[in-house]
Amino acid sequence: MRYREIYQRIRDAIAEGKLVAGDRIPAARTLAAELKVARGTVDAAYTLLAAEGFLIGKRRHGTFVSPSARPRRPSSTAKSFLGTSQPPDLRYLFGAPLPLTPDLPSFDQFPRKLWYRTVSGQARKSGIPQLTYPDPLGLLALRQAVASYLAIARGIHCAPEQIVITGGYAGALSLVCRMMLRPGLRTWIEAPGYYFTKSAVELVGGVAVPISVDEEGLNVEEGIRIAAEASLCVVAPSNQFPLGACLSLRRRVALLEWAAHSGSWIVEVDYTGEFRYDGQPLQALKSLDSADRIFYVGTFSKTMFPSLRLGYLVVPLSQLSVARDLTERLYGALPVLEQYAMTEFIMEGHFGRHLKRMRTLYSARRSALISAISRVFAARLDVLPASGGLHLVARLKEDENDALIEDFAGAAGLRPLALSKMGQGTPREQGLLLGFGNLPDGEALSIVRRLRGVFST
Amino acid sequence: MRYREIYQRIRDAIAEGKLVAGDRIPAARTLAAELKVARGTVDAAYTLLAAEGFLIGKRRHGTFVSPSARPRRPSSTAKSFLGTSQPPDLRYLFGAPLPLTPDLPSFDQFPRKLWYRTVSGQARKSGIPQLTYPDPLGLLALRQAVASYLAIARGIHCAPEQIVITGGYAGALSLVCRMMLRPGLRTWIEAPGYYFTKSAVELVGGVAVPISVDEEGLNVEEGIRIAAEASLCVVAPSNQFPLGACLSLRRRVALLEWAAHSGSWIVEVDYTGEFRYDGQPLQALKSLDSADRIFYVGTFSKTMFPSLRLGYLVVPLSQLSVARDLTERLYGALPVLEQYAMTEFIMEGHFGRHLKRMRTLYSARRSALISAISRVFAARLDVLPASGGLHLVARLKEDENDALIEDFAGAAGLRPLALSKMGQGTPREQGLLLGFGNLPDGEALSIVRRLRGVFST
Repeated sequence: MRYREIYQRIRDAIAEGKLVAGDRIPAARTLAAELKVARGTVDAAYTLLAAEGFLIGKRRHGTFVSPSARPRRPSSTAKSFLGTSQPPDLRYLFGAPLPLTPDLPSFDQFPRKLWYRTVSGQARKSGIPQLTYPDPLGLLALRQAVASYLAIARGIHCAPEQIVITGGYAGALSLVCRMMLRPGLRTWIEAPGYYFTKSAVELVGGVAVPISVDEEGLNVEEGIRIAAEASLCVVAPSNQFPLGACLSLRRRVALLEWAAHSGSWIVEVDYTGEFRYDGQPLQALKSLDSADRIFYVGTFSKTMFPSLRLGYLVVPLSQLSVARDLTERLYGALPVLEQYAMTEFIMEGHFGRHLKRMRTLYSARRSALISAISRVFAARLDVLPASGGLHLVARLKEDENDALIEDFAGAAGLRPLALSKMGQGTPREQGLLLGFGNLPDGEALSIVRRLRGVFST
Repeated sequence: MRYREIYQRIRDAIAEGKLVAGDRIPAARTLAAELKVARGTVDAAYTLLAAEGFLIGKRRHGTFVSPSARPRRPSSTAKSFLGTSQPPDLRYLFGAPLPLTPDLPSFDQFPRKLWYRTVSGQARKSGIPQLTYPDPLGLLALRQAVASYLAIARGIHCAPEQIVITGGYAGALSLVCRMMLRPGLRTWIEAPGYYFTKSAVELVGGVAVPISVDEEGLNVEEGIRIAAEASLCVVAPSNQFPLGACLSLRRRVALLEWAAHSGSWIVEVDYTGEFRYDGQPLQALKSLDSADRIFYVGTFSKTMFPSLRLGYLVVPLSQLSVARDLTERLYGALPVLEQYAMTEFIMEGHFGRHLKRMRTLYSARRSALISAISRVFAARLDVLPASGGLHLVARLKEDENDALIEDFAGAAGLRPLALSKMGQGTPREQGLLLGFGNLPDGEALSIVRRLRGVFST
């Protein structure tokens, strides 16, 4: 197909820095005449490039290379990224992972052979019942296994019928938002917080109200002061994203009382609650939920690996029929093979052993990253003392631009994330999220040196 | 857990007909005292039973066995189902398939070993890049394979970048509704039609406008007359569900002209377009889409098997960036292993060969079902002459109740579906959808005889 050649040539020119942000490209008619192809062929190529963010059309002024299109290495155009207030481009997550990407689990130490042997074993055992439409709530055996796991690991006692198997954290949060929100209803979100949360709330017409976070976690008093009537509160009590605070007991009690009193609902996001490096993991907030106000969200993306696309939601007893009705109407059922394999992986004890190994591994990788930063940056970077999760947060000086550093680091083959992009519309702090879960052993120092090279002074 | 025993005892009592619809069950406090358990234990059991539709609570009047709870065999309570106007309970699709279930593909002749060998081979080849977050638009290699397949099999010429891999038909339709509808916007739906369509439109606040269907398919003139300003039209041109009509050329042209003229969008549902038993499959409406107004939806649920949960959406060029933005915000990515395996299955020619075998098989099963009906029912049932798809439609006499027959057939271990439930709010015809895709060879006659036994005369 000829249009693909045109498409590819322009992409290559951008990648090689021959075309840079703001450059005007030839009118489709001119290029078509020059290449002796139909006008529609060039149009198709331009449309694709525009859809992928490489080109932008300005009405009557022509077509230009987009400011967000960037060459593979830093160039003089990098200044155009200064002062961006865009949310992070989620595309950084897709494809081969770069060092320092926040919140990726270890890929090098994941027991791939054991996992795929489990998958293949389940595939061999699959018969006709495994081919038909699966229950949109998830495989019952997996829901039972997750219920047992949650009781032991997170102090949550629930019936398997309360569990919905979802497409990761995103699937679980989307489901809760569609169940509980209506246009105009307000939701507390943590600021800074996980960028996906705001998006999920707003996609169903909900209004996200950013609530600040401090060393005790979500500022519950502030939430009650500015939005007591909110319908929903999305909170990560075990390990706040991105700052890593743990919600204090005082605030846990206040939050539960608010929800019970106002008839509001809490979404407990527990995406890395399993990983804590100073003592035992804390029990989930859900373990205290005697008033049945909490939707609990967990994911296998961090404890296993992201492309598995499995997460789980614990639904309050009173909302079970709403959950069943909506999952049937949406019919977002997941492929069953992974669900069977995950069930066996848990039941055979592989999952528990893997978690135990990963806790030790991540603790060591975290220490290695802290040492390397201290050695290379000395007091130049201020690392927050978070004791869980899969990334560190380093604060920058006030006059520094974390988004610019993120861009330059990206060009240097590293993927720290700018803290300011997690601000959810509130005043933005400058900092970097530095992932250590997937940091190769023995490479912390060389990677941190590469990061140092990105800083101007 | 004690509450599960209580739960199971009540379920058993309903299944065995000891408790029937409308029976009052003891107050939780009374039962708790009787069984010497905590009140909360009984409450938990009742809540679960209510969530699953076995019980209903009537404020101040107590708790009752639900009208929709039914014993495993017909009983005197069956009359309470008379005149139901409920949409079909989708749960019929989950779990082991019963004979005559509409629109299931063959499970007995699906090449399970070949498929799972392909899956296991891909599992063995998986490395670190296969573990990380997948592109929410789907694996590019699969999108390329689907684009090639669509060009050859359905006459659709599109770029791989226009294809989104989705969780079956449901995932694709939900995505289009979320992209293109806003509260209050109107959508033409076929009446009778696929029950999921109305649900998907209404979940985003859209207004479904039922348009009648005749032997030329969707009545486009009627649509233009009563809702010319609609934003969307969902249509199955190759094989209308459930009546099997094929949209006439005259109406295809009228529909495309309407969309181009009014700036509306068409969703072409092509869920069994591959299966046609009198000559070659028709080309898709999308193959005529020079104005770029059609979202094309296909699924592997019928051509492969449902628990694979893979479908595909072809997005108009002008809507590509909207599709990318929304899929990233929703992050409903699918597990990658099935996507790699499906790619190989297509590229190695297994998929094409399987389709060819299934066309022959389904043609024979369709003939066997028609012969058996003619032999057992003589002129008692009027079978429509649809020439594609995976089910037949048999019209009932005016004074018969298809929902009641569906219920009795269910109790006899068969799963025809009542045509009246597909009416989408319009006047309802009485009839039965009789699936033949999964009808075991040599059993058509005995199965149809069992169905005959359900009829009163």
